[in-house]
Amino acid sequence: MLAAHRVVTIFILAALTTLTLVLTPVSSQASSSAINVILFIGDGMDEHQIAMARNYLYGPKGLFAMEQMPVRSSVKVQTLREDNPKLLRHIADSANTASTLATGMLTSKGRIATAAVSNQIQTTILEDAQLEGYRTGLVTTASLTDATTAAFASHSPHRDCESPKDMDAEYPFIPPTQQCLHNQKERGGRGSIAKQLTKSNVDVLLGGGKKFFNQRLENETLLEIAQGQSYLLLKSTKDLLSAPENQKLLGLFAKKHLPVEWIGNNNHRAEQLKTNVEGDAIYPEPFTCVANAKYKNTPTLAQMTHKALSVLSNNNSKGFFLMVEGASIDKQAHKRNPCGQIGELRAFDLAVAKGREFAKQYPNTLVIVTADHGQAGQIVPLPESYQLASNAVVAPQYPTGYYAVLKTLPGELMAVSYATNSSPQGQWEMHTGTNVPAFMEGLGLDAVPITIDQRYINKLMRRHLKLKKRFKKNP
Amino acid sequence: MLAAHRVVTIFILAALTTLTLVLTPVSSQASSSAINVILFIGDGMDEHQIAMARNYLYGPKGLFAMEQMPVRSSVKVQTLREDNPKLLRHIADSANTASTLATGMLTSKGRIATAAVSNQIQTTILEDAQLEGYRTGLVTTASLTDATTAAFASHSPHRDCESPKDMDAEYPFIPPTQQCLHNQKERGGRGSIAKQLTKSNVDVLLGGGKKFFNQRLENETLLEIAQGQSYLLLKSTKDLLSAPENQKLLGLFAKKHLPVEWIGNNNHRAEQLKTNVEGDAIYPEPFTCVANAKYKNTPTLAQMTHKALSVLSNNNSKGFFLMVEGASIDKQAHKRNPCGQIGELRAFDLAVAKGREFAKQYPNTLVIVTADHGQAGQIVPLPESYQLASNAVVAPQYPTGYYAVLKTLPGELMAVSYATNSSPQGQWEMHTGTNVPAFMEGLGLDAVPITIDQRYINKLMRRHLKLKKRFKKNP
Repeated sequence: MLAAHRVVTIFILAALTTLTLVLTPVSSQASSSAINVILFIGDGMDEHQIAMARNYLYGPKGLFAMEQMPVRSSVKVQTLREDNPKLLRHIADSANTASTLATGMLTSKGRIATAAVSNQIQTTILEDAQLEGYRTGLVTTASLTDATTAAFASHSPHRDCESPKDMDAEYPFIPPTQQCLHNQKERGGRGSIAKQLTKSNVDVLLGGGKKFFNQRLENETLLEIAQGQSYLLLKSTKDLLSAPENQKLLGLFAKKHLPVEWIGNNNHRAEQLKTNVEGDAIYPEPFTCVANAKYKNTPTLAQMTHKALSVLSNNNSKGFFLMVEGASIDKQAHKRNPCGQIGELRAFDLAVAKGREFAKQYPNTLVIVTADHGQAGQIVPLPESYQLASNAVVAPQYPTGYYAVLKTLPGELMAVSYATNSSPQGQWEMHTGTNVPAFMEGLGLDAVPITIDQRYINKLMRRHLKLKKRFKKNP
Repeated sequence: MLAAHRVVTIFILAALTTLTLVLTPVSSQASSSAINVILFIGDGMDEHQIAMARNYLYGPKGLFAMEQMPVRSSVKVQTLREDNPKLLRHIADSANTASTLATGMLTSKGRIATAAVSNQIQTTILEDAQLEGYRTGLVTTASLTDATTAAFASHSPHRDCESPKDMDAEYPFIPPTQQCLHNQKERGGRGSIAKQLTKSNVDVLLGGGKKFFNQRLENETLLEIAQGQSYLLLKSTKDLLSAPENQKLLGLFAKKHLPVEWIGNNNHRAEQLKTNVEGDAIYPEPFTCVANAKYKNTPTLAQMTHKALSVLSNNNSKGFFLMVEGASIDKQAHKRNPCGQIGELRAFDLAVAKGREFAKQYPNTLVIVTADHGQAGQIVPLPESYQLASNAVVAPQYPTGYYAVLKTLPGELMAVSYATNSSPQGQWEMHTGTNVPAFMEGLGLDAVPITIDQRYINKLMRRHLKLKKRFKKNP
């Protein structure tokens, strides 16, 4: 039964892989002097999450494309406190960390390229690149208005100010200095994130978030405004694959976030263990990952990356800045869904492989692959280890968190646990405070220290694009 | 109150640091052609544990000495199954991982430089270095008979075969192929780990484990046998500091493992949260780390490392192999004792700094700092984040694991959690399956890939010492 199942899974994987491979090559970049930066952000993709996905897909002897890049550093994640920006928090969110990668400056949790407390604009590398004549692109598996993409092309006191409707609301759980009203047009603010993205003039915007762009700003919807600014709207994989390379693209492939590529067989996730009358744990059956039916017809992150590279490099002698996010590695870890997480990490690495192929063709390309913050997932012992330990000591021993046993593709068993939050609902698992990796490829990386912080990545990218240092001294 | 406390803590730290600094410099190595390898193993020291200690000591902007070395790689940890060595486990222990670092070959959990199932001897780099005329040394904060040191200079089906008394016992929770009886002298085996170490002829052995070396082997104690082989016995810091540099040293500074340098104020550890009638968590008070009174008069790992380097390099034109282990980073994480863990990681990094100083003086020295496997500790959100989340959703939210809030030396708050095991006693927290870091310094490291496995570290060290490849092809 399991064997038959595995054959089906591998067949589906093979089919998906083929789909990726039949893409046409990226068209020739006009000039070999063009300078490019591709930044890949795996949301929540710390070393532990990478090990989990690697073990599942290839076993402990395998390697992802990103793990084979020539340069590695480890990145410290730093977050200011909104209530006292002289102190640092040890847990970040995607908003403040993407902001730091985008601006080279620190800020507080929830903020989108704005300074803690003062709400001052922090200029992003994408904006500076645009001013210098570079093309720009943002690609994500989340809504385009979500924190990571938002931080490169908009400014907001809080990530929740996503669309016009959000701007008048008052949020009880957001600090007073971070309420959306500070960004209202009437107060001289820049408005919602969706509005700012619509007017951002970014050449390629691919992801989800249809529901936010369908909202009206005065008489027109944001979609209509975008079309007025000569964006070609894309709604399907077919639209994406057939889109011309000489036009600005706004691809919205889902109402909000894109569906994930994989789920657990029978929708299995990690679960809280029940115990029997003796207090011993009742362990769940091992399961495998299968393709998510809801994902059908959604473009892959590799396909979106490939199209973005084609458009950004087409007849372009200056170069470009492109940010590609694998958003749902994080979102699925929050939901204790190891198969969701593993499938998205795989999809992310296939997109990284596209970026590496491009860089091979155009050596003036700097490729940086990193994560924004740590996540909760841990590889922990199999039930047999807990049972053995239980026999050796007095009290029964079992994993306390949400626990799952996966039957990996190489045929081994791997147990994973998520154990940062008691709640079966709501915010679920929490971010963790570990360093995150950075993998790099390109010229001039010899002097990169082995331990850096997220501001350093911004500095490297700005230097590569020869951008002037527009931002103020780092806080 | 807290402020006054902090002053006291800092004073103690300053005092300890001074003690380290007043050591005399290592005597000149006879010849600049001598080739040396220093391998530092931080037991259980994954990136998350490093981040925790760094935040506590220096804040997120600080850096350890090891984090400033020129080369970094990330190390995959691989463990065979004893019941089917064609398959891999995803959780390792210190025995099989130290064995791989020592021998360059994979093996199964619990094994000391022996092959899975067959119990065949796997030759170690220390043994090969001895044969080639290098001096050798092993230094640890654990008992010298503990897994990590054992794996470099002894061979055993299981780590629990520590001393002569263990050799006849039958262990119900050890697989039949790994019982100590397979190593009995009567069966042609090599006997206990303590016996093998005594006869190992390793030039410097510094650590704990007096109780094992006090045992008799036929008519003599192991200590008497060691003295017969011209080892100078050391029992105190004074003995260590005044020991001559031209003699073999056996330092036994504790009955078993050395006491740890730091503990929590009022002995605070992480604890399981209690909840009130509404189901909301009652959070513990933040605490700081203080010096452990029991540690008094125990040599620091930096002091032991310094002495080992002096003896190994004294009038030595060939060179040496030295392994230094920070053992209790792991042991304290098992016990959910963040202050123990942080203090030991700090002590380990101070020892690494000694190694780096030596390498600066003798550039033919290869320094590698790594860990054996992952541990359970995670940096998680502060109580305020859980309380905020609780207000926003239906169910109360709180950390499920053993939880502590530390008041860090820079004056920030940091929450940590250990959540891999329900049991309040016994084996406690479990190892995790993340990659571990490797930090390197020395010549010829340009081609080190950014992702390696533990066998590669052995290969690098053997290559540096120009050792012949004595071991069979890796399984």
